[in-house]
Amino acid sequence: KKQKKVRAAIEAANQEFMDAVRRGDIPGMVAVYTEDGQVLPPNAEIVSGHEAIRAFWETIAAMGVKEAVLETLEVEGHGDTAIEVGAYALSGEGDQVLGRGKYIVIWKQQDGEWKWHRDIFNSSLPAPGS
Amino acid sequence: KKQKKVRAAIEAANQEFMDAVRRGDIPGMVAVYTEDGQVLPPNAEIVSGHEAIRAFWETIAAMGVKEAVLETLEVEGHGDTAIEVGAYALSGEGDQVLGRGKYIVIWKQQDGEWKWHRDIFNSSLPAPGS
Repeated sequence: KKQKKVRAAIEAANQEFMDAVRRGDIPGMVAVYTEDGQVLPPNAEIVSGHEAIRAFWETIAAMGVKEAVLETLEVEGHGDTAIEVGAYALSGEGDQVLGRGKYIVIWKQQDGEWKWHRDIFNSSLPAPGS
Repeated sequence: KKQKKVRAAIEAANQEFMDAVRRGDIPGMVAVYTEDGQVLPPNAEIVSGHEAIRAFWETIAAMGVKEAVLETLEVEGHGDTAIEVGAYALSGEGDQVLGRGKYIVIWKQQDGEWKWHRDIFNSSLPAPGS
């Protein structure tokens, strides 16, 4: 029952992220991360903290991403920490598919709110030029 | 103190993986995963279970990887589960650098042994052709 509650909270927070992407709302996208959150993106070094994460998502938005769909595959709650395994899809103008892949997010509950603390993902599509 | 013990166990298990890579010992590499373990590799779908994981590492070995170095950056233990954030480097014949990046491994303790249960990673190098 507690696990179901964690999963519901996580899916709700992911929905807020998806809504922020749809609005092009970069601060809304950054707000899902803890203050000392990290993104571990493909083909780049680790991105640490809100200021750097903002720049990261500005770059992604500038690539024409208009919609992100996050699908939670697994959630495990451990006190104020949760582990999520999921799948993502990114699309651009007119539903053009820009990418799809999988991710693991380590969540932390802070002041009652679940936030992304560690966020790693990679593409499931063949490498460009492969 | 308990967290230090988990970290030590995890670093020892990673050393076993590194030793297996150095020997070209595919079963030894597969043995670090839980029976229902998953690899979430870049540019491919999720790889589930020992048989598929064996084929995955055979492919990597065939690419000429002779050495893997895993560096644990963070460990959090939560009962029989642990979360590791780390950095990796792969090299080939004559210390040729084949890749480097970062990873998150979700560990499970089973029959007293810590095993890789979910394993996701990506490169920190620029995308080929970018």
